[in-house]
Amino acid sequence: MGIRYRARDLGIFVGRLKPGQWNAITDVAGVEVGHASLVHGEGKLQPGLGPVRTGVTAVKPHPENLFLSKVKAAVHVINGFGKSIGLMQIEELGVLETPILLTNTLNVGLVADALIEYMLQYDDKITSVNPVVCECNDSYLNDIYGRHVRKERVWAALNTRSGAVEEGSVGAGVGMSAFGFKGGIGTSSRILPNGFTVGLLTLVNCGEREELLINGVPLRPGIVESETEKGSIIIIVATDAPLSSRQLKRLAKRATHGLARTGATSAHGSGDIVIAFSTANRVPHHSVELTRTETKLNEAEISPFFQAAAEATEEAILNALFKAETVIGRDDHIREAIPLDHIVFLKERSVRCK
Amino acid sequence: MGIRYRARDLGIFVGRLKPGQWNAITDVAGVEVGHASLVHGEGKLQPGLGPVRTGVTAVKPHPENLFLSKVKAAVHVINGFGKSIGLMQIEELGVLETPILLTNTLNVGLVADALIEYMLQYDDKITSVNPVVCECNDSYLNDIYGRHVRKERVWAALNTRSGAVEEGSVGAGVGMSAFGFKGGIGTSSRILPNGFTVGLLTLVNCGEREELLINGVPLRPGIVESETEKGSIIIIVATDAPLSSRQLKRLAKRATHGLARTGATSAHGSGDIVIAFSTANRVPHHSVELTRTETKLNEAEISPFFQAAAEATEEAILNALFKAETVIGRDDHIREAIPLDHIVFLKERSVRCK
Amino acid sequence: MGIRYRARDLGIFVGRLKPGQWNAITDVAGVEVGHASLVHGEGKLQPGLGPVRTGVTAVKPHPENLFLSKVKAAVHVINGFGKSIGLMQIEELGVLETPILLTNTLNVGLVADALIEYMLQYDDKITSVNPVVCECNDSYLNDIYGRHVRKERVWAALNTRSGAVEEGSVGAGVGMSAFGFKGGIGTSSRILPNGFTVGLLTLVNCGEREELLINGVPLRPGIVESETEKGSIIIIVATDAPLSSRQLKRLAKRATHGLARTGATSAHGSGDIVIAFSTANRVPHHSVELTRTETKLNEAEISPFFQAAAEATEEAILNALFKAETVIGRDDHIREAIPLDHIVFLKERSVRCK
Amino acid sequence: MGIRYRARDLGIFVGRLKPGQWNAITDVAGVEVGHASLVHGEGKLQPGLGPVRTGVTAVKPHPENLFLSKVKAAVHVINGFGKSIGLMQIEELGVLETPILLTNTLNVGLVADALIEYMLQYDDKITSVNPVVCECNDSYLNDIYGRHVRKERVWAALNTRSGAVEEGSVGAGVGMSAFGFKGGIGTSSRILPNGFTVGLLTLVNCGEREELLINGVPLRPGIVESETEKGSIIIIVATDAPLSSRQLKRLAKRATHGLARTGATSAHGSGDIVIAFSTANRVPHHSVELTRTETKLNEAEISPFFQAAAEATEEAILNALFKAETVIGRDDHIREAIPLDHIVFLKERSVRCK
Repeated sequence: MGIRYRARDLGIFVGRLKPGQWNAITDVAGVEVGHASLVHGEGKLQPGLGPVRTGVTAVKPHPENLFLSKVKAAVHVINGFGKSIGLMQIEELGVLETPILLTNTLNVGLVADALIEYMLQYDDKITSVNPVVCECNDSYLNDIYGRHVRKERVWAALNTRSGAVEEGSVGAGVGMSAFGFKGGIGTSSRILPNGFTVGLLTLVNCGEREELLINGVPLRPGIVESETEKGSIIIIVATDAPLSSRQLKRLAKRATHGLARTGATSAHGSGDIVIAFSTANRVPHHSVELTRTETKLNEAEISPFFQAAAEATEEAILNALFKAETVIGRDDHIREAIPLDHIVFLKERSVRCK
Repeated sequence: MGIRYRARDLGIFVGRLKPGQWNAITDVAGVEVGHASLVHGEGKLQPGLGPVRTGVTAVKPHPENLFLSKVKAAVHVINGFGKSIGLMQIEELGVLETPILLTNTLNVGLVADALIEYMLQYDDKITSVNPVVCECNDSYLNDIYGRHVRKERVWAALNTRSGAVEEGSVGAGVGMSAFGFKGGIGTSSRILPNGFTVGLLTLVNCGEREELLINGVPLRPGIVESETEKGSIIIIVATDAPLSSRQLKRLAKRATHGLARTGATSAHGSGDIVIAFSTANRVPHHSVELTRTETKLNEAEISPFFQAAAEATEEAILNALFKAETVIGRDDHIREAIPLDHIVFLKERSVRCK
Repeated sequence: MGIRYRARDLGIFVGRLKPGQWNAITDVAGVEVGHASLVHGEGKLQPGLGPVRTGVTAVKPHPENLFLSKVKAAVHVINGFGKSIGLMQIEELGVLETPILLTNTLNVGLVADALIEYMLQYDDKITSVNPVVCECNDSYLNDIYGRHVRKERVWAALNTRSGAVEEGSVGAGVGMSAFGFKGGIGTSSRILPNGFTVGLLTLVNCGEREELLINGVPLRPGIVESETEKGSIIIIVATDAPLSSRQLKRLAKRATHGLARTGATSAHGSGDIVIAFSTANRVPHHSVELTRTETKLNEAEISPFFQAAAEATEEAILNALFKAETVIGRDDHIREAIPLDHIVFLKERSVRCK
Repeated sequence: MGIRYRARDLGIFVGRLKPGQWNAITDVAGVEVGHASLVHGEGKLQPGLGPVRTGVTAVKPHPENLFLSKVKAAVHVINGFGKSIGLMQIEELGVLETPILLTNTLNVGLVADALIEYMLQYDDKITSVNPVVCECNDSYLNDIYGRHVRKERVWAALNTRSGAVEEGSVGAGVGMSAFGFKGGIGTSSRILPNGFTVGLLTLVNCGEREELLINGVPLRPGIVESETEKGSIIIIVATDAPLSSRQLKRLAKRATHGLARTGATSAHGSGDIVIAFSTANRVPHHSVELTRTETKLNEAEISPFFQAAAEATEEAILNALFKAETVIGRDDHIREAIPLDHIVFLKERSVRCK
């Protein structure tokens, strides 16, 4: 298949801000990511048996018990044709109390249940917990009816780590498609002039080939035939800056701007969901105080965060595309990786002026 | 325990509109309800084993395949401290494509999965379906950790029927509490002067005893001691009138007015959720038309629907309280039924002027 | 006409929490209220000339320059059939930067302009300010076409003061109707066990006589004939507790509960709007800090605020009704004050158990 | 100054759909546009006197009485730092009952009042009307304190017409800036394969020069120095397709995608507002029917509308930039038109593959 590169490795520089050390959501201190990939069987679809091309990806805002030490969070629904679980309580209370799990559409129930059980093991007095599970549809490659992501694989993904993040056809991204090519997991980050970081991870399963823009430049027509795609995208935005839930909602909305620049238009059937959280100002589950002191970003300083979210979204989507390898799935469906030599060609013609 | 009566049987007449034949959500033609109650074990809590005091309740807008013939719907979140699943897509698309299931908080994942499987059996080409599951917390009486509501019981509840609806400690209501008494399932309906019907079903698990108002009149203090309750309420509003999803959202909001008149204030920890649907103007899943003709209520005629939703909510909550029998649950926790002789006494003192 | 009394003076005690010194929004330290009442002319309506039965009411969160020292705020729209100005920016930024003005429906443009000019005089560098003006419709009594509330009267109302608040047919309440009787301005407050205060002011112009509940008890039918009313209500909730804008939005929603207990159902044509603000944690317009430290209420402590908002709303609405005097307006339209001897009678029959 | 061209005249083709006859919002049959431009005085700012560089632009969905024959409409707030009037009622009722007026920030009150008076003249029984006025801030060039747009000029703009639409520094666009250049009014349209039309008009006052993308390509740095801009954008989307208000809201959200592709990130201080309306299915003000029959777009057919809205937004913004001429305003502030020879150069280097 050839080696896969990230956008930046190919000389494609999205936007004007610099990425962090890993150019990943894990550049936000404390954030960890885990994947469990399920790949087995081949040939004809036998519902419940396979072939299996799916998985689960976990994002943890910090490595401690998130239920006891919640983080501020917000949600933005770009297009709500989706089955995500747990968004309502984030909206009401402005906090996230479980890791965020990504998986396939029909698996949300079982994955939510596995996440509930995972949370219960840490505190035997929890009678109410808000599991957050988002999804895209991998039925083109995967036996989606089988709902193969069970507790063991969910818990494996929850065994997260910091540092570099695996991208492409991994975890929840194993069976995803994007812009007529193989899609999956992508990540990116930005360091702001004020010293704060914005990190971003996305599960990309949206877009038609004809609408794809790579740093503003469309593909040459005729190289590859077009195919109608429905699909979705989940975007997770993290920051170490002390944003309130209202400010995080403003931030989450700017992921739309990055998504739009890849050519996507959030089609009817696309579940395009953004969750943003801040690792600052943790909210304790047990607290007897009447009031609490918090640090909060001066609202007038928020625009660079918007720029960072837009840039990191666009780049993370490209990373998902570029790092994903070709996958052959159920019924011998093939989803080809975007050809990187073609991209290099595009890059040369990408006459960005700086 | 003595016989349990509905509010109207006790001479308590909420509001000014008349109820339908069953004074139930099933007065809206086609609507069906099913319950599966799980009651076994007693004594000390053994997480995963019991005692079990829980269940599931299903509401179907019509007896046919709802995925293929969806109904218009809307959601209103009074207080979003809850784990309901499936609301986002209703908000985006304005349709409901599965029955609505009610169960306990930690069981939402498994019940959603059972509902997904239920929908798949009717059409083997479904790769995306939006399960709608709402919940209240029954951990005071139930081994909630056990997540005992599995596929068989969910499917049993989905074996719904029309006509009279069982109320009180049944289905999802088995383990619920309300206003310091036993709570559970309640239902009511109103016939409008224009001939349309509004039906309503609620799962009541909210309120403190001190704040309870029975048709506007509080309990005498001292008769029963007060106890702090957290809890939630799920309210389902049905109508046969051709309301659009926007109009249904307006309708859903008026359930708040009925809830408020029972004295509830939707406390911090309460997940107070309303779903409204119309059985008119079904939306086909498969359609090749560019446009479709629909009938729609003249907006200026909507106020009586608001009144009906408020009245039916208040009465359905009272019905849940009045019909619920005392339940002894895990760790010998007792939740007593509201004493009806006391209510009769209250009724006499209820000096409604007409 | 006879002396008019507040609900509490008549022995009608709404809820369980105690009011503050003035039982008014001004019990929240710093909050001030001003009224300008326009009453002149009588007889036949001559659009543009009169008779005039209208006015403007101003609520200031604190007596200083609000643009330079903004307060946190939130909005809840119960029913959006209304023409209020300035709500969108409150929703986005979570702050209020002008006094809140109440007036009649067709006057919102001129009153907003007068408020803009008022803000400009304090700082000649303001090029953008968000005027907040809410309205109800007083056309039954007033020459509403005339848009008589001009700059001089707006500025007069902005000459606010602390302490006791005039209620009933005053300021924006001069021409308003409620529940088939004369409506207008009402206010109330609650002191919480934790020491914080919730104050509330409302402009009441909603409700039909048949649906009116006085502390849970309806009027005897036949005493006064029924009349269909359309109308609106504006509710302003103030607190000295350090609530974030998200928490204030939760608080604002509970005004619905108090409104509902008066029997109102927020009919189709009713613009029912709630604005909540906190006088703690002022937000400076000019700030060069990157972050700021704030005190914030522990979320788990918020429920008593909800109860307070519900109780104060219900009582403020009753106060508006009870304090309003009969007004004869354009075309000799008469809106009679609710007869207080009748209310006393009602009170005796109000068999609240404590 | 040289002749100004539209994007398409310069060979810049945004997207893949074709524009209509006028490539303007007026390609939607019945839609009309009117401008009133106020330009007088020069030199030093004398608040209230000038120099005046402002105006008002009117968009009418159809040439008849819009109050009596309303159109379906929806609103999407991208960033709510703005003072637009009338959006709440559109959200609640899903209809637009006045023309949409665009003007400057401090003029919204007076313009709303002029619009109210304009509506009253057509029906002397209107006591409640929802004026819709949106704004951007032209204070860099204009004596914004003077609030110079009075009734006469508003009514002049309301004298709208069909056909070609004047763009650039005209009407509300006279004093606006965008991406460090002169901004103003732009328009565009798209014809869908299904035969329906999407038309769009925008008032552009947002963006920094460094972030500008022209069909995906940024400016060469160094040609012109950068300057920090705050600002806003108002986007009006029209269609002749029978979209419900919910569908129109979905459509309105896709204007974000077009905006994003110009490089804008909807900065903190930017009021970015979208209003969408459909000219099909008019809603009569006076109606005695209980229900009404309407045609409605099959939801599955909506994606091409999304693409059209995104494309038309991007092109309309470019048109605003390209057609705007240099304006010298108060205190001799100069806002230069974007140099078109430079754009031609960019175009040549714009290696769009088709």
